[in-house]
Amino acid sequence: MKNVTLLLAFLAAASGVAAKIVTKPVAYEHGGVKLEGYLAYDDTKASAAAKAPGVVVLPEWWGLTEYPKSRAEQLAKLGYVAFAVDMYGAGVVTGDPKKAGELAGQFYGRPLMAERAAAGLTQLVKSGLVDEKRVAAIGYCFGGATVQALAYSGAPLAGIVSFHGSLIPASAEAAAKNQAKFLVCHGAVDPFIKPEELAAFSKSMDEGKFDYQFVSYAGAIHAFSNPKADEIAKAAGLVGGVGYHAAADRRSWEHMRSFFAEIFAKK
Amino acid sequence: MKNVTLLLAFLAAASGVAAKIVTKPVAYEHGGVKLEGYLAYDDTKASAAAKAPGVVVLPEWWGLTEYPKSRAEQLAKLGYVAFAVDMYGAGVVTGDPKKAGELAGQFYGRPLMAERAAAGLTQLVKSGLVDEKRVAAIGYCFGGATVQALAYSGAPLAGIVSFHGSLIPASAEAAAKNQAKFLVCHGAVDPFIKPEELAAFSKSMDEGKFDYQFVSYAGAIHAFSNPKADEIAKAAGLVGGVGYHAAADRRSWEHMRSFFAEIFAKK
Repeated sequence: MKNVTLLLAFLAAASGVAAKIVTKPVAYEHGGVKLEGYLAYDDTKASAAAKAPGVVVLPEWWGLTEYPKSRAEQLAKLGYVAFAVDMYGAGVVTGDPKKAGELAGQFYGRPLMAERAAAGLTQLVKSGLVDEKRVAAIGYCFGGATVQALAYSGAPLAGIVSFHGSLIPASAEAAAKNQAKFLVCHGAVDPFIKPEELAAFSKSMDEGKFDYQFVSYAGAIHAFSNPKADEIAKAAGLVGGVGYHAAADRRSWEHMRSFFAEIFAKK
Repeated sequence: MKNVTLLLAFLAAASGVAAKIVTKPVAYEHGGVKLEGYLAYDDTKASAAAKAPGVVVLPEWWGLTEYPKSRAEQLAKLGYVAFAVDMYGAGVVTGDPKKAGELAGQFYGRPLMAERAAAGLTQLVKSGLVDEKRVAAIGYCFGGATVQALAYSGAPLAGIVSFHGSLIPASAEAAAKNQAKFLVCHGAVDPFIKPEELAAFSKSMDEGKFDYQFVSYAGAIHAFSNPKADEIAKAAGLVGGVGYHAAADRRSWEHMRSFFAEIFAKK
């Protein structure tokens, strides 16, 4: 009987039958701005008594839409404690590229980018469910750039993953502060990243002795991981250069998973 | 009792306890040259009744040394039928870069490169253990270039993996013939691959609409996957640019595994 129970428990764990995903909005504040992030975890896999690795999710320039929240839920299903970060302010989302450019524009090249992201990281850890030695950050488009900036600021991250992110070359100061391994998932034909930007980024990674992996996915353009990229782009009046790519989405997620298996392995 | 047996069977399969790797030299001939390849498989995972995916392994320019044979054995442990290909002739191996350059030099830019590799592919299939719809080719250095040439010739491959291979840009004819998905594992600071070679290769992949993934591994140089690269280079009098890189080795192997999971998935 004991073995039957064991077998059933094993099968339940393997198939995820017992998983229960808890999600909740989390109100916090940074620099006088009221923010609202989104916490997700599986309460059979993460608790105060049995802490799990944690991952912050940094949104596209549209703000904290359903998309980064859905990624937080997917991460929760993998057993991680995930926190989708609010960069703009509670409820501030847009589908207008001009507005999105303004919202994201306040961060590029300023310490605020890393600081606002770090405020989200603090909320993740404050959940009390996270093993602080095993924390990573992932981000999409603008959020991909944001996780680079967060790593460059010296945040205590085991790793970052940038999905079709803008690329910020690392300064020597950033290289000295950085603690994170990098996985950069790039659309091979993304027209928003110029070859010279790519070259400058790679050069800074090599010169700064970063531990990075840079993956180019054939046929993939900007926002390749977002299943709604095409309709969002159409509604926004963006023509070309933005779109979903199922193979690149699946492959980059798989690469993230094996990256996490490496960086979250207990020493 | 039945459940105990089930559980034990599961544990044995999961831990690989029951695995038995069969290896054997295989004599064959191509273009008047007597060749000897190396077949490896797990006879609990591949048989005439239960065919498995097959993988040919194309050696470095040193010839069919222990290194590609050890990779064939590793592939066998993963459940694949592997065949390490002989490109030069039975027993022809060298540690002398001048000699190796001459041996490899007879193939570059000539149909013989793909033809000699295809002769190995034929031997793999002739084992009678391989599901012919699920065949891939992997190669190292010179062998990385060889698997590209093999794909360009229109060989019936689900995919190829090039590890620190020389890069051969695809012609329009190659793009029309190619059936394989590509995974290219590249040392980010490999001094033997010039930036312009890399750019020409990527351009040809994009223009030819190849389904490829190109991964750059930080800090990795030429031959990064070969644990004996340093001692081989030293013995050969090669100074700099060649060496083992444990993280890139581990990561590229893992990427190969997830690539195989994709291309060998039953439709």
